[in-house]
Amino acid sequence: MRRRCLLGAAALAAFAPAVRAQAARFAEEDLRHAEALRAAGLADTEAWRLLEGITTEVGARPAGSAAEARAAQWAVAAFTRLGLSNVRAEAVPLKIWQRGPGSARLVAPAPHPLVMAALGNSVGTPPGGLEAAIAWYPDFAALKADGSDKAKGRIVFIDQKTERTKDGSGYGRAVGARFSGAVEAAKRGAVALAIRSIGTDRDRVAHTGAMGYDISVPRIPAFAVSVPDAELVARLVARGETPRLAVAFETRSDVEATTHNVIAEVPGTDLAHEIVAIGAHLDSWDLGQGAVDDGAGIAIVGAAAAQIARAGRRPRRTIRVVLWGNEENGFDGARAYGDRYGAVPHQLVAESDFGAGRLWRFSSRVQAAALPLADAIGQVLAPLGIERGDNAGGAGPDAALLMRRHKWPAMLLFQDGSNYFDVHHTENDTLEKVDPAPLPQNVAAWAVMAWLAAQSPLPFGPPPL
Amino acid sequence: MRRRCLLGAAALAAFAPAVRAQAARFAEEDLRHAEALRAAGLADTEAWRLLEGITTEVGARPAGSAAEARAAQWAVAAFTRLGLSNVRAEAVPLKIWQRGPGSARLVAPAPHPLVMAALGNSVGTPPGGLEAAIAWYPDFAALKADGSDKAKGRIVFIDQKTERTKDGSGYGRAVGARFSGAVEAAKRGAVALAIRSIGTDRDRVAHTGAMGYDISVPRIPAFAVSVPDAELVARLVARGETPRLAVAFETRSDVEATTHNVIAEVPGTDLAHEIVAIGAHLDSWDLGQGAVDDGAGIAIVGAAAAQIARAGRRPRRTIRVVLWGNEENGFDGARAYGDRYGAVPHQLVAESDFGAGRLWRFSSRVQAAALPLADAIGQVLAPLGIERGDNAGGAGPDAALLMRRHKWPAMLLFQDGSNYFDVHHTENDTLEKVDPAPLPQNVAAWAVMAWLAAQSPLPFGPPPL
Repeated sequence: MRRRCLLGAAALAAFAPAVRAQAARFAEEDLRHAEALRAAGLADTEAWRLLEGITTEVGARPAGSAAEARAAQWAVAAFTRLGLSNVRAEAVPLKIWQRGPGSARLVAPAPHPLVMAALGNSVGTPPGGLEAAIAWYPDFAALKADGSDKAKGRIVFIDQKTERTKDGSGYGRAVGARFSGAVEAAKRGAVALAIRSIGTDRDRVAHTGAMGYDISVPRIPAFAVSVPDAELVARLVARGETPRLAVAFETRSDVEATTHNVIAEVPGTDLAHEIVAIGAHLDSWDLGQGAVDDGAGIAIVGAAAAQIARAGRRPRRTIRVVLWGNEENGFDGARAYGDRYGAVPHQLVAESDFGAGRLWRFSSRVQAAALPLADAIGQVLAPLGIERGDNAGGAGPDAALLMRRHKWPAMLLFQDGSNYFDVHHTENDTLEKVDPAPLPQNVAAWAVMAWLAAQSPLPFGPPPL
Repeated sequence: MRRRCLLGAAALAAFAPAVRAQAARFAEEDLRHAEALRAAGLADTEAWRLLEGITTEVGARPAGSAAEARAAQWAVAAFTRLGLSNVRAEAVPLKIWQRGPGSARLVAPAPHPLVMAALGNSVGTPPGGLEAAIAWYPDFAALKADGSDKAKGRIVFIDQKTERTKDGSGYGRAVGARFSGAVEAAKRGAVALAIRSIGTDRDRVAHTGAMGYDISVPRIPAFAVSVPDAELVARLVARGETPRLAVAFETRSDVEATTHNVIAEVPGTDLAHEIVAIGAHLDSWDLGQGAVDDGAGIAIVGAAAAQIARAGRRPRRTIRVVLWGNEENGFDGARAYGDRYGAVPHQLVAESDFGAGRLWRFSSRVQAAALPLADAIGQVLAPLGIERGDNAGGAGPDAALLMRRHKWPAMLLFQDGSNYFDVHHTENDTLEKVDPAPLPQNVAAWAVMAWLAAQSPLPFGPPPL
């Protein structure tokens, strides 16, 4: 306690070189409290209750929809029940994209219905749909390398596979086909883009997700088919066939709507004006229940804040749970949050948005003088089976945007995402897909990280960017 | 060879008591050939080729559809290519049920779209659909035990779970809810029946399958929802809610059509007029590619017959591959087969219709005098990891019907069906779901069984029924 009183933020700035030389340290009692939070987190049952709640009482909650507004109300009620403070939903106007009905089928060499989903932001097909032969590419690189006129007048089909990885790097390598495939296809005269779902499953469900256009080329309809359907197309292509595909779907763009950032706090004490933001995203894609993406994140950060509130010791800085709106298709919530709170000092911004798997690594993005503190957090996390990563870490999608835009320090807790992309952005993203077992470890780690960030004798920023 | 010549069928009948006393035996050279077939079967690649072919070139093939007619053509071409003889498709007129578009959703306490499939033979809903509160039952027994008026005017929801078992007994215990649920619901005044899919998966796909009506009660619409959707309903019910459900779907019944039995033979020699029938079913439900149900069976029995034909030794009896039409919803093919061939002596009728899992048991249904022969077949199968079951075995669905109707002897090779009901009767029944590894073991066993049945010194029948 004495040390904390001596080393307020102003004092720190003056004595920074001396502190650095000594290596900044957490107060022993703050470390002990972190250990107590860790133990309490490992017995958590609230995260599952939250996750079960939002998937059951709300379900799919695409940004700007009535369901997302209900999700915001649900979150306000849940966080209030958990004893958090200053709970509110902040409305954010935005323009949204909406999915209409759609279908796709092979018409030659044999009729086969295909399970499809329009990609987010895609224009629809002409009324009545379109039909064309496929121009098949084994991956996105092959399309980009194609200087021929093979794609002209055809439906480009990118058979990009998604590698199963623990850290999501397989998704990172594959997702370009989804995001930029329509532009590359349109440059080559294609009438539509079809992709193998960006996913690691073998289920008859299609994975949606955001795509983008380029004003320099026509906006062509873009959609994903399920992995088994992509396998079927590949088998036909391997036989030397040129499959013909018919597709019809409707979409709406630029629909005026409102999304929400939901905020709830454990108020700080002497440094209450500084914010430790731990977040997730409120919205989900429209196809599932938003369980792994990102009901799990909502549950984890909400339960972690509740553990801190319940433990009774108030933090120095304010610990703020933030559920950003429209992470999936525009980051409107994160940008609005930055517009509103950009001038408020943030000690940390971090987001849980990679499902509900076991945590295995912890990375940071803090100023050099704060590195011993990040390492000390890592030491409290280590008994949870979490290894210390580097200081060039990210923060989760919304948090990373804010980290870069506002130069806010960040930390990232890495979940095992080996199964995450089996159901990501699909109808299959339902509660049953979540193994409850790793949730308490997640809650424990987030509580430790948030608590110690709030107690730090040093500001974590500015981060190395 | 000498023994075979001495003990023709007629001679056997006369000397049966003596033969029994000695215990009937296969000729050594027939056993050696069975062992050679076993070894060749274990190196089989044809079954996968057949399975890949029918799922890719045809796919879903509901009985009486244009696709099933294409499947019959495909099978005729495939069996001809494999060197089988007397290959033909025998047309069978029938009346079929057809699925139209459909959808279901919860409207209260919160809107949730549900993934649904009409059950086979169900009437459709009134135009525009219907909406009602749910009367929820944890299982079919609970509905049958209900003497109250709880179901009146409601949509009965049976949450019958399907236990994962190796032998399919879990399905057997659950399927009554699907087949007879609408009758029990209608008896109690319900306006529709919804069931948890009869399946062991947790995927957002609904399992269809045949249901039936009773003339004594109204025909109400019947449909299945996916397991995750049933879990959602159960969670709402556990909260004390009474969910309201809206459903709309179209179906057609009694549509005049044609199904096919496809037949191909390895012609016999001295007992060529006796038939060893090894079968599968040609048709599939309309939702998947008919890979595990029953492309795998087609592939296994087709490849087994091909192994026998390729080995060059002609069997005594004729080995006949039969692909029956409309197993899924009426057994029209099996009945037509019986009508046509009921007077032809059948030494064996057997069917592969439980997916593509590893074989683990062999059962028989043969006359007592032939038991030593069935046991001897079991001994040749034993090195494949197949245990000898009893002599009260079944035969697969079509074959069992024929066994009982015509008193034909039967044998059954039991596959490990632990995963079969994950995809059974769903959109997810696609090629990817088949592990190719156990296919050669299946081919080896079916070739051994068919060959030795054809070489038996005794008729297997009449079976104990």
